[in-house]
Amino acid sequence: MNEQTLLSLASIIMAGITVTIGSIAPALAEGRAVVAALDAIARQPEAASSTTRTLFVGMAMVESTAIYCLVVALVLLFANPLI
Amino acid sequence: MNEQTLLSLASIIMAGITVTIGSIAPALAEGRAVVAALDAIARQPEAASSTTRTLFVGMAMVESTAIYCLVVALVLLFANPLI
Amino acid sequence: MNEQTLLSLASIIMAGITVTIGSIAPALAEGRAVVAALDAIARQPEAASSTTRTLFVGMAMVESTAIYCLVVALVLLFANPLI
Amino acid sequence: MNEQTLLSLASIIMAGITVTIGSIAPALAEGRAVVAALDAIARQPEAASSTTRTLFVGMAMVESTAIYCLVVALVLLFANPLI
Amino acid sequence: MNEQTLLSLASIIMAGITVTIGSIAPALAEGRAVVAALDAIARQPEAASSTTRTLFVGMAMVESTAIYCLVVALVLLFANPLI
Amino acid sequence: MNEQTLLSLASIIMAGITVTIGSIAPALAEGRAVVAALDAIARQPEAASSTTRTLFVGMAMVESTAIYCLVVALVLLFANPLI
Amino acid sequence: MNEQTLLSLASIIMAGITVTIGSIAPALAEGRAVVAALDAIARQPEAASSTTRTLFVGMAMVESTAIYCLVVALVLLFANPLI
Amino acid sequence: MNEQTLLSLASIIMAGITVTIGSIAPALAEGRAVVAALDAIARQPEAASSTTRTLFVGMAMVESTAIYCLVVALVLLFANPLI
Amino acid sequence: MNEQTLLSLASIIMAGITVTIGSIAPALAEGRAVVAALDAIARQPEAASSTTRTLFVGMAMVESTAIYCLVVALVLLFANPLI
Amino acid sequence: MNEQTLLSLASIIMAGITVTIGSIAPALAEGRAVVAALDAIARQPEAASSTTRTLFVGMAMVESTAIYCLVVALVLLFANPLI
Amino acid sequence: MNEQTLLSLASIIMAGITVTIGSIAPALAEGRAVVAALDAIARQPEAASSTTRTLFVGMAMVESTAIYCLVVALVLLFANPLI
Amino acid sequence: MNEQTLLSLASIIMAGITVTIGSIAPALAEGRAVVAALDAIARQPEAASSTTRTLFVGMAMVESTAIYCLVVALVLLFANPLI
Amino acid sequence: MNEQTLLSLASIIMAGITVTIGSIAPALAEGRAVVAALDAIARQPEAASSTTRTLFVGMAMVESTAIYCLVVALVLLFANPLI
Amino acid sequence: MNEQTLLSLASIIMAGITVTIGSIAPALAEGRAVVAALDAIARQPEAASSTTRTLFVGMAMVESTAIYCLVVALVLLFANPLI
Repeated sequence: MNEQTLLSLASIIMAGITVTIGSIAPALAEGRAVVAALDAIARQPEAASSTTRTLFVGMAMVESTAIYCLVVALVLLFANPLI
Repeated sequence: MNEQTLLSLASIIMAGITVTIGSIAPALAEGRAVVAALDAIARQPEAASSTTRTLFVGMAMVESTAIYCLVVALVLLFANPLI
Repeated sequence: MNEQTLLSLASIIMAGITVTIGSIAPALAEGRAVVAALDAIARQPEAASSTTRTLFVGMAMVESTAIYCLVVALVLLFANPLI
Repeated sequence: MNEQTLLSLASIIMAGITVTIGSIAPALAEGRAVVAALDAIARQPEAASSTTRTLFVGMAMVESTAIYCLVVALVLLFANPLI
Repeated sequence: MNEQTLLSLASIIMAGITVTIGSIAPALAEGRAVVAALDAIARQPEAASSTTRTLFVGMAMVESTAIYCLVVALVLLFANPLI
Repeated sequence: MNEQTLLSLASIIMAGITVTIGSIAPALAEGRAVVAALDAIARQPEAASSTTRTLFVGMAMVESTAIYCLVVALVLLFANPLI
Repeated sequence: MNEQTLLSLASIIMAGITVTIGSIAPALAEGRAVVAALDAIARQPEAASSTTRTLFVGMAMVESTAIYCLVVALVLLFANPLI
Repeated sequence: MNEQTLLSLASIIMAGITVTIGSIAPALAEGRAVVAALDAIARQPEAASSTTRTLFVGMAMVESTAIYCLVVALVLLFANPLI
Repeated sequence: MNEQTLLSLASIIMAGITVTIGSIAPALAEGRAVVAALDAIARQPEAASSTTRTLFVGMAMVESTAIYCLVVALVLLFANPLI
Repeated sequence: MNEQTLLSLASIIMAGITVTIGSIAPALAEGRAVVAALDAIARQPEAASSTTRTLFVGMAMVESTAIYCLVVALVLLFANPLI
Repeated sequence: MNEQTLLSLASIIMAGITVTIGSIAPALAEGRAVVAALDAIARQPEAASSTTRTLFVGMAMVESTAIYCLVVALVLLFANPLI
Repeated sequence: MNEQTLLSLASIIMAGITVTIGSIAPALAEGRAVVAALDAIARQPEAASSTTRTLFVGMAMVESTAIYCLVVALVLLFANPLI
Repeated sequence: MNEQTLLSLASIIMAGITVTIGSIAPALAEGRAVVAALDAIARQPEAASSTTRTLFVGMAMVESTAIYCLVVALVLLFANPLI
Repeated sequence: MNEQTLLSLASIIMAGITVTIGSIAPALAEGRAVVAALDAIARQPEAASSTTRTLFVGMAMVESTAIYCLVVALVLLFANPLI
């Protein structure tokens, strides 16, 4: 096995693992945030606007960690500086 | 084993793992969101419209992480730049 | 072991693992959704229609992640582009 | 070990694992659904018809994921396209 | 080790594992269902008939997943199509 | 190591594992059922007859999964069709 | 290592494992049953007789799974049909 | 390594493991029983006699599983029929 | 495999692992913080400003640990001092 | 490595493991018993004598499992019948 | 592989692991602290100043353990005394 | 590697493991006991003397299991009968 | 690989592991302490001084275990007596 | 690798592991004790003196298990009797 192949192999494996494992925690965290938002709306329907605003800002910040992983995965696949 | 085969092998394995593991957390998170939505409807039936709207927006955002994984899996199977 | 056999072997193994592991989370999530729906009906029998509608839409969305896995498993078995 | 044997071996092992692991989550989910149904009946005996209807529809949907696994296991044993 | 022996060996091992692991989840799920039924009887003794009917139907459905595993185990031991 | 010995070895190991692991879940499930029955008796002593009847029927059904495992273990030790 | 020794070795190891692992779940289940019985006595001292009768019948049934394991262990040590 | 040594080695290792692992569950179960007994005494000091009697009978039954393990361990060390 | 390749290989693998595992805890922690903020808003809508200010300061501090990991990953990929 | 050394090695390792793992469960169980005793004293100071008596008898019985392990460990170190 | 390369390799791997694993616990702990602070503000808005002061001092102390890990990681990468 | 060295090596490793793992459970159990004592004092300050006496007796008994492990570790290091 | 290198390698690896794993528990424990302090302030603002004093003394004692690990890590890197 | 090096290697590794793992449980236990003390102060500020005295005595006893580990680690590094 030559070395170019080895680095490609590692890149394929790490790209899959990175985006896979890296999406577990954000998905769970966003699910909990949605749960809390639905609960908050059920308790105080008149505060729905500030609830959804806080929900979307928070989910965007959580989503950022998933995007870090997606970016590293795509860098490994399409623009790997070490190959 | 030549090197083309090795990369194909790794791609098959990673495609399966990526879509498999990557769908665990979104499924659980969406399940919890549905649970919370059903609970919210049971508590405040008159807020059903804002409840379902928030539910669908939140589930779409959670579903996005599953789709990231599906995209990477399909890229590995059908459009792998390293093979 | 020639290389065609190796790829077939990996495809058989990954097909089984993908559909197996990929059906755990949706089954659990759907079970929880059914639990919540039964609880909601017990608390507010008159909101049964909106409860079941939300339940079915949510379960369809959760089922989609299981179907992603089934699709990848069948692609690996019957229409594998890398063999 | 010739290659036909190897693929048969993998098929036997994966068939067992697929149906085994694939029946864990549906069994647990159905158990929880039955628990919730019994609890709902105890709380509102007069809503027993809609409770059992929702229970059976939900358990059928959960059972579908177990059947996906059984189908893949039987395909591996009796109609394996890769052997 | 000839190949007939190897397949027999795998069949013995998988038969044991399949029926063993495959009976864990149904046993636990049935245990929980019995717990819920006893609790429901303690809370509403007059609804005992519908409680036990729901319990038996539900346990039969849960038991089905254990029987899937037992069937696959017996197929592996007594009617293995790949040997 | 000849092949008869190897199959005997696998049978011994699988018999032990099958009956061992296969008795964990039924024991726990039966323990929970007993706990629930004692709790139900403490709450409604006058419903003790229907409580104990449901308990025994349920424990028999749970015990069946342990007996599946015991049967497979004894088949492996005393009437193994593959040796 | 001749083959008689190998089978003896496996029998020693499996006997220990079987009785060890096989006694975990019954011990825990019986402990919970005792806990529930003590709790029931504390709540309804006048129902002590039916409580202890249900406790002993239930513990006997749970103990049966431990005895299955002990029997298999002793069979492996003293009356192994495969040696 | 001759075969007598190998069997002795396995006996030493299994004796330690058996008594070690086999004492975990009884210790935990007895601890819970003591906790429940202390709680019962705190709630109903006048039922102390039936509480302690049930406690001792239950702990004796739980202790029996630990003694099964100790017996097998001592049999392996001092009266091993396979050496 | 020469040594430059080996270091590149380790850098690729560690970069993926670092950003993947390193984003799990911040995502979960931020999700919990969002949950708490939504709960606080539902309880005291008039304190929304101090709630969101505390939320954003806290999430920034939590996000810092994710950024430590991203920085180390990028250093390993683009500015590795040991290659 | 001669065989005397091998048995000594196994005895040293098993002695450490036995006393180590074997003291985990008793320590936790005794800790819980102490917790329950302190809680019982806080609730009924006038029943302190029967509380402490039950506590000491129960802890002695739990301690017995730790002593089983210590005895086996010391037997392995100082009076090993198989060396 | 010469020895300089081996030490570099170990340094790269340990730097990634150190900063990755070392940021899990601080992130979770800080998330909980933010949760508690938001809860405290929701309960007593007039004590917000002492709440936020305690929060920031506590988070700084927690952050210190993450910085210990970052320092060790940077020492391994940029100022390793053993290379 | 001569045999004296091997036994020394095993003794060093087991001494560390024994005292390390053996101190986990006592520390946790003592921590819980302290928690319970502080809780009991907060509920009944006038029973502080009997609380602290029970606490110290109980902690001494829990500490005994940690000392068993320390004794075995020191025996392995300083007075090993098998070296 | 000469022996100096091997000891250096082990020191690098152990230094990273020690400070990494050793900072998990203190961070979590300090986070819980901050949570409790914030909760205590929210319940009794007038006891803030004794609360914060107890918090800082307790966190210093918890921090000491993290510093033990940091000291051992630095000793291994900069003042290793065995190299 | 000569034998002196091997023993040094084992000592370095065990010293790190011992102090690392050995500080987890004390840190967590002390954290819980601090939590309980803060809770006790919030409930009964006038019993702060006996609370803090019990806290410090208890934490000293818990800290003792961490010091056992530190002592063994330092003995392994600086005064190892087997080197």
